[in-house]
Amino acid sequence: MNRQELVAHIKAKKSFLCVGLDTDIEKIPNHLKETEDPIYEFNKAIIDATKDYCVAYKPNIAFYESLGSKGWSSLEKTLNYIPKDIFTIADAKRGDIGNTSKLYARAFFEQMDFDSITVAPYMGSDSVLPFLSYENKFVILLALTSNEGALDFQFMTSNSTGLKLYEKVIEKASTWGNPENLMFVVGATRPEMLKNIRKLAPDNFLLVPGVGAQGGSLEGVAMNGMNKDCGLLVNSSRGVIYADQSESFATVAGEKAKELQQEMEGYLKKFGVI
Amino acid sequence: MNRQELVAHIKAKKSFLCVGLDTDIEKIPNHLKETEDPIYEFNKAIIDATKDYCVAYKPNIAFYESLGSKGWSSLEKTLNYIPKDIFTIADAKRGDIGNTSKLYARAFFEQMDFDSITVAPYMGSDSVLPFLSYENKFVILLALTSNEGALDFQFMTSNSTGLKLYEKVIEKASTWGNPENLMFVVGATRPEMLKNIRKLAPDNFLLVPGVGAQGGSLEGVAMNGMNKDCGLLVNSSRGVIYADQSESFATVAGEKAKELQQEMEGYLKKFGVI
Repeated sequence: MNRQELVAHIKAKKSFLCVGLDTDIEKIPNHLKETEDPIYEFNKAIIDATKDYCVAYKPNIAFYESLGSKGWSSLEKTLNYIPKDIFTIADAKRGDIGNTSKLYARAFFEQMDFDSITVAPYMGSDSVLPFLSYENKFVILLALTSNEGALDFQFMTSNSTGLKLYEKVIEKASTWGNPENLMFVVGATRPEMLKNIRKLAPDNFLLVPGVGAQGGSLEGVAMNGMNKDCGLLVNSSRGVIYADQSESFATVAGEKAKELQQEMEGYLKKFGVI
Repeated sequence: MNRQELVAHIKAKKSFLCVGLDTDIEKIPNHLKETEDPIYEFNKAIIDATKDYCVAYKPNIAFYESLGSKGWSSLEKTLNYIPKDIFTIADAKRGDIGNTSKLYARAFFEQMDFDSITVAPYMGSDSVLPFLSYENKFVILLALTSNEGALDFQFMTSNSTGLKLYEKVIEKASTWGNPENLMFVVGATRPEMLKNIRKLAPDNFLLVPGVGAQGGSLEGVAMNGMNKDCGLLVNSSRGVIYADQSESFATVAGEKAKELQQEMEGYLKKFGVI
């Protein structure tokens, strides 16, 4: 999917919601645990219930990888089940030397057909470039993350440029890619910094985790981060998919997604995107 | 495996060689491609031929992941085939928010039984700590990598401490772990920096990729990085496993591993480890 199509879907659905498919075998309802592939059955039900309210799905790969080859099979089936007009994000945070990053790109863009992958910036240009060479695919580079450990290194300030590490990541990566193939991860727990990030990356989409369970506010994110094309994908995982753990889990997940979509519709109107 | 056992194996085998099982389906000899699991057959032959000369095996996970669930199955079988007295490294470069890193730890330390995993530091403490909570398992944290992109961020110098990012990573991580559960990745392409790194991390093992195909020198690494317990695992991947691509590939790989072991024996004696 390209940027223009993503923007069109956001406008049509009046939503910039990304649903995080962080499906934990220990948290899914008991009645699904007797099926042959509980993870896939859970995801299928969540997708059916939420697909009208969201524009992206983001499976965090750790949840599948922790189940071994069986988990990878559940991931592949889930990806195939997601409607083609919904943007897909492999939340994998990969990154290795050039010839190895090529293989990760092959894994997520060819072996599987994700629209995008999250990538960790520590190893620099050749670890990121192989992912950028695919047409209509996106790198979503970690810039400012939503967790406590973000404070350890991401705010380190350069003695030569005065830029913080996360700013340098955005500045440098913007010379490798462009808004057609590069997005950034910016945690919702730091919405006040979105204004600053918009100066460095006015047109790139930002993937914003941390709304809900991690404590970020949707309003703060929209106010500080929205651009004329929306430019935001706000992720909710636990707040949607585990809103209810009974047999009605999917219905409740659909309701939660709809609530978020309606709040988002308000911001899209308020800031003139629709 | 704990640190003491690893040191004992290094002394007994007179080697600090790690063989990188970066097994690429496109590079393995034709006669293996007709078997049911060519990757596993290749690895089995390489392990049989090299196991007397090395103390560690390091599959780079990208090579398996790029083959989907079938690749994960080859990885699991390979890991089970490695003799229990050889240290195993999942070269995965993972790292995510705390509750997700827990799952990666479960994937590589429980679902599979690796002795260690490489971890990317960008997301800070809570992305690393879950891996450190396992007894007799190691985090191998990226500090100074061997690739060109290492120059993009790892040398950024802090305006408050004067430390470079890779130095700050070592300093900070040393407050999270200790030489019994924490190693660092330091590329062989920058051996002159090993002396400096030894000041920050005198006792930690260093995993050193980049000897051979990437141009690093074993002598430079040993001279600058060895400590009284050796403290080094030097990895060779392509230089060993693809030294020959005929039906004699395993024999030649064994010879290459033996050559490296003999050179290493010289350095272990020279620096008084054995």
